[in-house]
Amino acid sequence: MDFDALFTESLDALKREGNYRIFAELERRAGAFPRAISHDAQAPDDVTVWCSNDYLGMGQHPTVIQAMVDTAHACGCGAGGTRNISGNTHQHAMLEAELADLHGKDSALLFTSGYVSNWAALSTLGSKLPDAVILSDEKNHASMIEGIRHSKADKVIWRHNDPEDLDRKLAALPVNATKIVAFESVYSMDGDICPMDEIVEVAERHGAMTYLDEVHAVGMYGARGGGISEERGLQDRITLIEGTLGKAFGVVGGYVTGSAALCDFIRSFASGFIFTTALPPACAAAACTSIRHLKESGAERARQKEQVRKLRARLDAQGIPHLPNDSHIIPVMIKDPVKCRQLADILMQDFGIYVQPINYPTVPKGTERLRFTPGPLHTDEDIEYLVQALATLWKRCALAHAVA
Amino acid sequence: MDFDALFTESLDALKREGNYRIFAELERRAGAFPRAISHDAQAPDDVTVWCSNDYLGMGQHPTVIQAMVDTAHACGCGAGGTRNISGNTHQHAMLEAELADLHGKDSALLFTSGYVSNWAALSTLGSKLPDAVILSDEKNHASMIEGIRHSKADKVIWRHNDPEDLDRKLAALPVNATKIVAFESVYSMDGDICPMDEIVEVAERHGAMTYLDEVHAVGMYGARGGGISEERGLQDRITLIEGTLGKAFGVVGGYVTGSAALCDFIRSFASGFIFTTALPPACAAAACTSIRHLKESGAERARQKEQVRKLRARLDAQGIPHLPNDSHIIPVMIKDPVKCRQLADILMQDFGIYVQPINYPTVPKGTERLRFTPGPLHTDEDIEYLVQALATLWKRCALAHAVA
Repeated sequence: MDFDALFTESLDALKREGNYRIFAELERRAGAFPRAISHDAQAPDDVTVWCSNDYLGMGQHPTVIQAMVDTAHACGCGAGGTRNISGNTHQHAMLEAELADLHGKDSALLFTSGYVSNWAALSTLGSKLPDAVILSDEKNHASMIEGIRHSKADKVIWRHNDPEDLDRKLAALPVNATKIVAFESVYSMDGDICPMDEIVEVAERHGAMTYLDEVHAVGMYGARGGGISEERGLQDRITLIEGTLGKAFGVVGGYVTGSAALCDFIRSFASGFIFTTALPPACAAAACTSIRHLKESGAERARQKEQVRKLRARLDAQGIPHLPNDSHIIPVMIKDPVKCRQLADILMQDFGIYVQPINYPTVPKGTERLRFTPGPLHTDEDIEYLVQALATLWKRCALAHAVA
Repeated sequence: MDFDALFTESLDALKREGNYRIFAELERRAGAFPRAISHDAQAPDDVTVWCSNDYLGMGQHPTVIQAMVDTAHACGCGAGGTRNISGNTHQHAMLEAELADLHGKDSALLFTSGYVSNWAALSTLGSKLPDAVILSDEKNHASMIEGIRHSKADKVIWRHNDPEDLDRKLAALPVNATKIVAFESVYSMDGDICPMDEIVEVAERHGAMTYLDEVHAVGMYGARGGGISEERGLQDRITLIEGTLGKAFGVVGGYVTGSAALCDFIRSFASGFIFTTALPPACAAAACTSIRHLKESGAERARQKEQVRKLRARLDAQGIPHLPNDSHIIPVMIKDPVKCRQLADILMQDFGIYVQPINYPTVPKGTERLRFTPGPLHTDEDIEYLVQALATLWKRCALAHAVA
């Protein structure tokens, strides 16, 4: 059987649709963020990154780098095993304590990534709890969808950010079902924030567990960076808060926090936790340092909000349409995969502006977009240069302007 | 609903069975491997690790640490995004080229862990290829089992390391099914090595794809550390070779290698690849350095084999039973979870010897064991001290000796 022919056929279909992905090859430069070196022959050597999830630039913060370096020197690189078999180090224990404190919970459990934390936690809860039904917001992330699917629990999809629909769907379930309401605080592609108060209230009324993904919020919202749940004073009322160390905290890894029994349960039964090598102690130490910094310092958060506000205002002034939302994510809708790729290519090659075209399956077909994430390290000049480049392109490509 | 009561009930059952897991908290000391600091109040401060999967001590090799440190200084900590959205760096590209070369393949694709690489690759192949049937060795790792299950492809289990059974089961399938034979080279818990020549021959005869997990072999077997498939000259005849960067290479991460079309196919369709933050560039650089070192240097491999041989011989001389195999893994069978934990506790507390008791679900119930992995950095004195400790315990606990 000619397997390569099978693979090529599927890849050709992606290319025809404009959904074939080409990765930009960058070289990050510590201390220069959002500047990076591009290894793309057709782009300038120096580019400005406008689509990073290192939202606050913490991945290049000197104390975070130093923690990684010091721990690598002291302890070496890898953990050397699973958490159970020789891979559990002091740095992992410290990080979990820091995370539990961040969210005001008893315990935390670390995973190799945010994807794995969602997948493993939801598949364990859904498969191990008696008569579990998972009520999933229709825009939940792929990692949650795959975890729910893998659990083989009953699944009920509720309308995006619609507590009334959730209420109806909870009411229709048997009283003795174990109900798990799974949702996100900040949805990364539209940047909209959930009505958390109402969702929590509805869930409580029906005796449902709440599973909240805060990956696009931790570090950035709340007085100590505990996310939207901290900002709104809801930490105590949410059963499980899931987060990542790979976005605003600037390192790598994912986690869940909750009661001691909940974390111990997932620790004891989740295949994706048990059978995998632990994160390098140096990564755990760097993440720990980053969390501590953002618990104390609000400067990065304040400056991020300021730069986000500025970019929005300048886009509005130029009539460049973007999705309104209350977060730090600014989606500029293109609605066509080929055009989206072309615009990104021109921005990269002619202007040294790197923004990855977002296409299917990350967003539904027909909603392709450029997604900008201004951070505290983007200067006013960076913003102006970006807006001028977009304005030029909008003229050149005759794209629709926002209705003034 | 009292969720904590549900969790506690399941945890109590584990405790009653003796299958509740207690992690040892260690602090690795670069340059002192296999010595580590123990944070266990009942153990000596300094312990010797006998169960690490940092099989060759490469996680503490000075050049590997230096690569991590240099890259952290140059590029910062995290990648800042998925491979598609701003997280694809020069270090990832270099590492993938190195891995493709290691296995004599066109391409390689990096994942956040070996677990994710198996889960994502098998679930993508199984779900996307027409009429796929996955033929899985009955002792395959949890990550492969979960990937196959997630794919929803038809699954056929063949008897462990039995090419004749595989032959029969392949012959029973429809001619036009897409057949994928999934197996490992070194099975980590028994340490046995598969009859790779015969498996490959059988698969070829039936036009089946071969999917080989080499995680417990890469770095340690073959003239350049390409694993058992390199040692036996079979690299070219295997469709996909999967491996890890978190064991003998001493860092973190997993990968698959194969044809360009195969890797591009998985890159383009695997949820567990697409929707996750890339590994830190510093980890990629450290892994790359480790692979390059082990391609050139056979000293670590030779010394590992020597120390494995010595420990086996000394155990034999003391009549301490262990599973025979051709690998570097020495399982001493205890066959009871409570006894296994007790022995491990005494070794740790009285002798400063750290070996984690291996219990269910890592091994079937009733096959609990202590699993020793001697490496090039264990001295002859370490071996003698371990053997004397075990001999003392065997007497004290009246455990069965091997029949001489």
